[in-house]
Amino acid sequence: MLHFNHYMPTRIIFGPGELKQLGTHEALPGRTKAMIVIGESGIMLQNGYLARTQGFLSEHGIQSLVFDRIKPNPESDSIAEAATICKEKEIDLVVGLGGGSTLDAAKAIALMAANDGDLWDYVAAGTGKNKKPNNPALPMVAIPTTAGTGSEVTPSAVITKSGGNEKIGIRHESMYPIMAVVDPDLMLSMPPFLTACTGMDAYFHAVESYLSTVRSPNADLLALETIHLICHYLPRAVADGEDMEARIALAWASTAAGISLSQAVAISQHSMEHALSGFYPELPHGAGLTMLSNAYFSFLAEQGVERIEDLAMAMADALEVDIPEDQLMDAFIPMLEELIRAVGLAELNLSDYGMKPEDIPALADNALDTMGRLFEISPVKMTREDVITIFEAAYS
Amino acid sequence: MLHFNHYMPTRIIFGPGELKQLGTHEALPGRTKAMIVIGESGIMLQNGYLARTQGFLSEHGIQSLVFDRIKPNPESDSIAEAATICKEKEIDLVVGLGGGSTLDAAKAIALMAANDGDLWDYVAAGTGKNKKPNNPALPMVAIPTTAGTGSEVTPSAVITKSGGNEKIGIRHESMYPIMAVVDPDLMLSMPPFLTACTGMDAYFHAVESYLSTVRSPNADLLALETIHLICHYLPRAVADGEDMEARIALAWASTAAGISLSQAVAISQHSMEHALSGFYPELPHGAGLTMLSNAYFSFLAEQGVERIEDLAMAMADALEVDIPEDQLMDAFIPMLEELIRAVGLAELNLSDYGMKPEDIPALADNALDTMGRLFEISPVKMTREDVITIFEAAYS
Ligand SMILES: [Fe+2]
Ligand SMILES: [Fe+2]
Repeated sequence: MLHFNHYMPTRIIFGPGELKQLGTHEALPGRTKAMIVIGESGIMLQNGYLARTQGFLSEHGIQSLVFDRIKPNPESDSIAEAATICKEKEIDLVVGLGGGSTLDAAKAIALMAANDGDLWDYVAAGTGKNKKPNNPALPMVAIPTTAGTGSEVTPSAVITKSGGNEKIGIRHESMYPIMAVVDPDLMLSMPPFLTACTGMDAYFHAVESYLSTVRSPNADLLALETIHLICHYLPRAVADGEDMEARIALAWASTAAGISLSQAVAISQHSMEHALSGFYPELPHGAGLTMLSNAYFSFLAEQGVERIEDLAMAMADALEVDIPEDQLMDAFIPMLEELIRAVGLAELNLSDYGMKPEDIPALADNALDTMGRLFEISPVKMTREDVITIFEAAYS
Repeated sequence: MLHFNHYMPTRIIFGPGELKQLGTHEALPGRTKAMIVIGESGIMLQNGYLARTQGFLSEHGIQSLVFDRIKPNPESDSIAEAATICKEKEIDLVVGLGGGSTLDAAKAIALMAANDGDLWDYVAAGTGKNKKPNNPALPMVAIPTTAGTGSEVTPSAVITKSGGNEKIGIRHESMYPIMAVVDPDLMLSMPPFLTACTGMDAYFHAVESYLSTVRSPNADLLALETIHLICHYLPRAVADGEDMEARIALAWASTAAGISLSQAVAISQHSMEHALSGFYPELPHGAGLTMLSNAYFSFLAEQGVERIEDLAMAMADALEVDIPEDQLMDAFIPMLEELIRAVGLAELNLSDYGMKPEDIPALADNALDTMGRLFEISPVKMTREDVITIFEAAYS
């Protein structure tokens, strides 16, 4: 019996050059004072994206100030700092411009700009107090400059607690961006390694939401489409960053995977990766997933998770190889390995990011504690021992 | 180059028995006085759907009054009458319960309950004055009891001007239902002819939105999925109305086609059908489309509209027949004919609904005048002569 809820209220404006639609749109009525949230690297200034964003807003009567203290793994202290500024300056719109971390930070800022207390009051896991926010988040516009996280179409934000290694997703319906401007032109400057890591993140969003026990038929369609597009185009964009056709396809694929994720949900591979990048902050999220994936999905395949066959079929289709139906399950891992090779990530190594075998029990505890909910909607039960075994296999 | 906008803010609650979620949902905060809009046939009383709807609302503190004067082709006078009652009684929520006409009427009522003047002030074609509404529509909840129109997820309503034969779609973003409760249990009572007509409407929504020049990749995916599901399940549901698996699949298919329609748009077959059912009010919309379809799509196929091949592929796939790639275009019309036969509509005849050959020029003018916009986004240009030729072929 099919039962599902579908809700994704974000208005998506998609296409090369469409950043110019920012501010013109009736979706922003009455807004006058925006905070633009960007990463601390300064890259949004260098490439001119910040100036263009400010220009398009100001043409339509929206003043903006910039908050540029967002780290690659955004921390709760900087969210609090920005939210205080929003309250002082009576900001009525938050604009996130950058990669997934920046968009996540902007969503958390929008929530805290409209609510009292501390972000961790509203966090539902770990040391969070699981309170319900009194007010909806400020309206937030997401402008992604990478193709991977899908954060532009989800109501959640992954934030690290300052002074600890709790890296937790916080989700509230009012945190759906009111508008996502997905302009592939802004993604042309991604270097190959970032292209590969973010693209693999989108790939795993699709794979995980397809395998999750929370089903939605639209999420399924979008997940299979994403897998198809990533297998076909990600190796091309890694090889040639100027390949516009590939950039466009990947921009749509990552947004599609994000929609899929917002209707279904990621599974426990994401819990395990958040533990890793919580412990080793230099580890890019997509790289962490990639290094876990062989061990993680081999575990699922051994347990006979049938839907893996559909994923294998989508990959085989994109790669134009013919696989007999009874060999689809066994074909998934070799095709995944081939994809990882084709996007240049085969040589990644967890020890290069500081992982040590003796960290594994603590990593497993962190994964189960801070994002235990994703284990509940994974297609097979996993014990703490299983999680340890997967971490060990991924490390070796 | 891929450019598109995607916006579909309706919260969908889907599944057998899910009507019970009505009222429980956080999507209706602060609402206390609802108008429930139903058709004039009395069927919603007889089958108990009205009582259940009122019960679920009242459990959650929402009082309701009933407006039951909606005809199968809703007219502007009854919209005005209901809107006046909404204003007098300070209604803050409109609930549409019934088929597509009822849901359309409820959307138009929600718009007019929040705005002054006459509905035709806000109509953009025919004798409409094309004004912009000052206020958004009242929040509206759609509860479909047929599987076809997709009205539960679109922001438009087709209304006939009282005292004329202008049957026009009015569209305003605030007319997206805030919630659609799609409960296949409510569709079990549809008799075979209604099942077939509404199912074919959904089929043509998918086909037309796929062929429209307004593209969206998610709309494309949903359209192909709908075509697949309709071909597979509509004959089953017509043969056995209690076939729950088929009812569920068709409920999802019609909603999916509606989402596709709200992101892409129907093409000129719908303009032509609205002319027909505007002239001959006894003609069910889905029956009108079905009788036009052979002539209409033969015209498109002759013009070599390439995307028809994808539609043929989706149908062949559902019917498990193998068609060589170079024969897909020619295979579409025979498969369409077979589908129409399989759902029991092969014997339909336009003259049985009162059509006469001498009406054809006026029908063509009406189609081009009242819904001319859909001709602009159709895949080939059509002259008035072409429209006349298609009407003639459909009549004969
Ligand atoms: Fe991710
Ligand atoms: Fe229709």
